[in-house]
Amino acid sequence: MPTTSLSGFPELLPSERFVELAVLDRLRTIFELHGFAPIETRAAEPLEQLLRKGEIDKEVYLLRRLQADTEEDQPKSSDSVLGLHFDLTVPFARYVIDNAGHLQFPFRRYQIQKVWRGERPQTGRYREFTQADIDIVAKDALPFHHDVEIARVMAEALGALEFLPPLRLQVNNRKLIEGFFRGIGATDIGAVMRAIDRLDKVPADVVGKELTQVAGLSDAQATVCLQLADIRSTDLAFVERVRALGVQHDLLDAGLAELAAVIEGCATINGVTVEADLRIARGLDYYTGTVFETRMSGHESLGSICSGGRYDALATDGKSTYPGVGISLGVTRLLMPLFQQGVLAGSRPVPSAVLIALPHDDDRSRCDALAQRLRSRGIATEVAAAAQKFGKQIRYAERRGIPYVWFPGDADEPGTDTVKDIRSGEQVSADPDAWLPPENDLRPQVIMQRVER
Amino acid sequence: MPTTSLSGFPELLPSERFVELAVLDRLRTIFELHGFAPIETRAAEPLEQLLRKGEIDKEVYLLRRLQADTEEDQPKSSDSVLGLHFDLTVPFARYVIDNAGHLQFPFRRYQIQKVWRGERPQTGRYREFTQADIDIVAKDALPFHHDVEIARVMAEALGALEFLPPLRLQVNNRKLIEGFFRGIGATDIGAVMRAIDRLDKVPADVVGKELTQVAGLSDAQATVCLQLADIRSTDLAFVERVRALGVQHDLLDAGLAELAAVIEGCATINGVTVEADLRIARGLDYYTGTVFETRMSGHESLGSICSGGRYDALATDGKSTYPGVGISLGVTRLLMPLFQQGVLAGSRPVPSAVLIALPHDDDRSRCDALAQRLRSRGIATEVAAAAQKFGKQIRYAERRGIPYVWFPGDADEPGTDTVKDIRSGEQVSADPDAWLPPENDLRPQVIMQRVER
Repeated sequence: MPTTSLSGFPELLPSERFVELAVLDRLRTIFELHGFAPIETRAAEPLEQLLRKGEIDKEVYLLRRLQADTEEDQPKSSDSVLGLHFDLTVPFARYVIDNAGHLQFPFRRYQIQKVWRGERPQTGRYREFTQADIDIVAKDALPFHHDVEIARVMAEALGALEFLPPLRLQVNNRKLIEGFFRGIGATDIGAVMRAIDRLDKVPADVVGKELTQVAGLSDAQATVCLQLADIRSTDLAFVERVRALGVQHDLLDAGLAELAAVIEGCATINGVTVEADLRIARGLDYYTGTVFETRMSGHESLGSICSGGRYDALATDGKSTYPGVGISLGVTRLLMPLFQQGVLAGSRPVPSAVLIALPHDDDRSRCDALAQRLRSRGIATEVAAAAQKFGKQIRYAERRGIPYVWFPGDADEPGTDTVKDIRSGEQVSADPDAWLPPENDLRPQVIMQRVER
Repeated sequence: MPTTSLSGFPELLPSERFVELAVLDRLRTIFELHGFAPIETRAAEPLEQLLRKGEIDKEVYLLRRLQADTEEDQPKSSDSVLGLHFDLTVPFARYVIDNAGHLQFPFRRYQIQKVWRGERPQTGRYREFTQADIDIVAKDALPFHHDVEIARVMAEALGALEFLPPLRLQVNNRKLIEGFFRGIGATDIGAVMRAIDRLDKVPADVVGKELTQVAGLSDAQATVCLQLADIRSTDLAFVERVRALGVQHDLLDAGLAELAAVIEGCATINGVTVEADLRIARGLDYYTGTVFETRMSGHESLGSICSGGRYDALATDGKSTYPGVGISLGVTRLLMPLFQQGVLAGSRPVPSAVLIALPHDDDRSRCDALAQRLRSRGIATEVAAAAQKFGKQIRYAERRGIPYVWFPGDADEPGTDTVKDIRSGEQVSADPDAWLPPENDLRPQVIMQRVER
C-alpha cells in the first residue's frame, strides 16, 4: 500500500492498480455481454438534485470556485450550489430524465465511477471510492423478469472475480416481508423493517425488544418475525419454511413468487453463492420489491459490498415515471481491505514482460527496433535505461518483476538473440518475430494469498 | 449529443461513450506495451499543493463539507483546504514524493482521469474533462533518450487513433530557442518566448512589435527571431535552416542535437506527422528542454490538444530532485468537438450484436439459456423484453442498432434456429455454439464521417 497522506482518499501502487483494472475489465466485459451500455455522468450535481429525496443528512462535498471574484459571484440560493455526487443512482436518474428522448427503453446501463462523501475524517471511512453499478430502467412499466436479469448479471460478474474470497449474494423481497408483517397484523411496517435490518449488527433479543417496544408488536408477533428473518436457502426450500409459519397475505404470495423466480433464475451461476435470505431489508432505501445484499466470507465486518433492488420510481419527470432495478458493487470497499491484509496483490508493478538488455549505448536504436517487434505481437517491452554490466541490467529487471531479459545477438548475424527467464535462469535462443512468453507472464496477474486468520 | 444541463460539465450518450472507450482502450494498450504502469491519484489535493508553484490565478474548485457541524469544523487555514486537481502533473509529482520508497526509477506511468477547473461558466470551456498523461520520472538524473521515448510512445498512440482527423505532433526545444535568443544578444528571454508563443494567435507583425517594444529587441533581432519561428520540417532539414541564420551559442547546439534526435527517433511512426516546429515555446510552463504541442487538421482553433515537455524538476523532496518528461492528451477537448460536428459517432448505442426473439412468454428461460451460449463465445446478446409479434421485435432491434435477430427454432428439434441480418434481410440457419457475426459487427464501431467544411 502507498503512503496515504490524506485520510479517506485511498491511492494504489501500480501493482495494486493492475488488480483493480483486472476487476473493472472483467465487470465491463460481462456487463457488455449482457447488453449493458456504458455511461458516465458528470461528478457534480446541483445540491437540490442530490438532496431531492429530502435526506438532508447526506454527506456531500460542496464545490466553490477559488476564483469567484466577489462574494456575490458565489451562488446565492441553495438551488445553484454544486456538490459532488455521493452515489451513481441519483445522477443516473437525472441523466435518464435529461436524455429520455435519446434513449431506448428498457435502458440497460453500467456505470463505473468515483463517488465522494464529505465525511469527517475517520478510520475505515472512504471519502473517495469507486462504484460499479448496473441498472435497467423502463418508461412507465418494467416487467419483473428484469429483476432476475439484474441478479444473474451481477452474480455472473462476481463469479468471474475468482480471486476474491467466497461471495454470497443474498436476495429478499420487500413485498414478501411487508406482506408477512401485514399478515401478522403489524401496523408500523417501516419500524419493523428497520428493526429487522439491524440483525447483522445487534443480537436477536435486542431486535426482539425493538420489535415490541418501538414497532409495537406483541411478543408472539416479534417471535414469528424473528423466525422469518432466520430463514435462508440456496434453493426453493425457503418457500415451504415461510408457508410453515402459517401467515396469509396477498403481498406475501406475490413476494414469495418473485423471490423464488430470482433464486431459480440464478441456479446455473458459478463462482458465487446466491441465496434467499429473509432478514435482508435494506433499511431506509426506497426499494419496492427485490432487494440485494452481498457478503464476503471472512470479511463480514465490511457489511454488504454489493447492494441494490427494485425501485418503482427511479425517476419521474411529471409526464412519465421510470421504474428501475439495479445493483451497485463497492469496488474500493471490496478491494482495499484485501490489499491491506495482503490477501490480493499484483504479480509485478510494471506491464513489461521483457527487458531488452543494452550491450552498448550506441545499440539503443537497434534495441528500440527490437522492442518494437516484440510489442507489435502484444508483448509489453522496455529497453534498459543504461548500458551497465548485464548483471546490473538483470537486477534492474528483477527489481521491477520483469520476468524475461532479452540479449540482442550480433547485429550482423541474425538468429543470435537469446532470452533469459530470470526466475529459473534458463536462457534460450529466440526469434523476436516468433517468441512468446507463457500466457501468465504476458500481463501482470492477480495473486491471491490465503492469509491465516 | 445529450442534453447538457450544466454548462462546462459535458456528458456523452452511450454510442459516444463507446467511441471514448475505444480511444482510451487504444491509448492504454500502447502505453502498457511500452512499459508504462497505470496509476490514479485522488481527485483532491491540499490547496497549497495545487498552488505550490505560486500561481494564484489557477481555476480551482474548493471542497467544503455540507455536514460541517459548525463554522469551526471547516478548515481554518489555507493549508488544510482541499481542492479538486486541475491537471494530472501536480498530483503525480506529489504521488512520486509520497511513494518514492515504493517505486523503481526511472518510473514510467500513464494516468487517465478527470480533472476540474473552477471556471466561470462560458461557452467552449470545460469545467470537467478527461486527460491522458504519460510521464517518465527519474531520481536525480533522467537521460535524454527518454525524451525521444515519450515522443515515440505518444506519437504511436495518436497514430493508432486512425479515425481522427490528421494530427501533427510539433516538437521544439527550449535550449535551442533560448540559445538562439541569447546568441543574437537578447536579454529578456522570457519576454521573447512569450511573444513568439503568440504566433498562432496574432499576426507576425504584431509579434514583431512585441519583440521590439516589450522584449527590447532591435528590428534586425526581431526579424531573425521571426525567421527562426518560421522554420519547420518533418525531417532533419530544419538543422541546416537554423544554421543558415548564422547564430552561434552552445545552448543552441545542444538544443539542435536534441531536437534532431527526437525527429530522427520518430521517423518510423505511422499515422501521425511528427515535425520540428521552431515556433513552439509552451509559454509560461516550466519546461527546460524538449517541448511538444499537437494540432488537429481542420480544428486548429482548438489550439494544442496534446502538450508537454521536459522538466528538470517535476518534484523535489529536499533530499532528491525528480526530473521528468511527459505529455498530456486532452481527450475531452479532442473528442467533444468531433461529436458536436458529427465527425465521429459510435455505430450503435448498445453493445449487443444479437437480439434473441421471444416466441412466447414461457420461452424466456430457453431464450436466456440460448443467449448465454452466444455470450460464452464473446457475442453480446440480449433477449427481447416482451413476446410481441416478430415484426415488432425486429423494430425493437432496429431502434437500438442491433444488427442480428436470432429466432429460436422448435425446442424439440435441434438445428432449427435461424439468424437474420436485419440490415440486408438475409436469414440463415445457425448453430448457437458455432455462429459468429463478422468482426465489425461484434462490438460497436467508431464511425468517421467526413464533413463538408
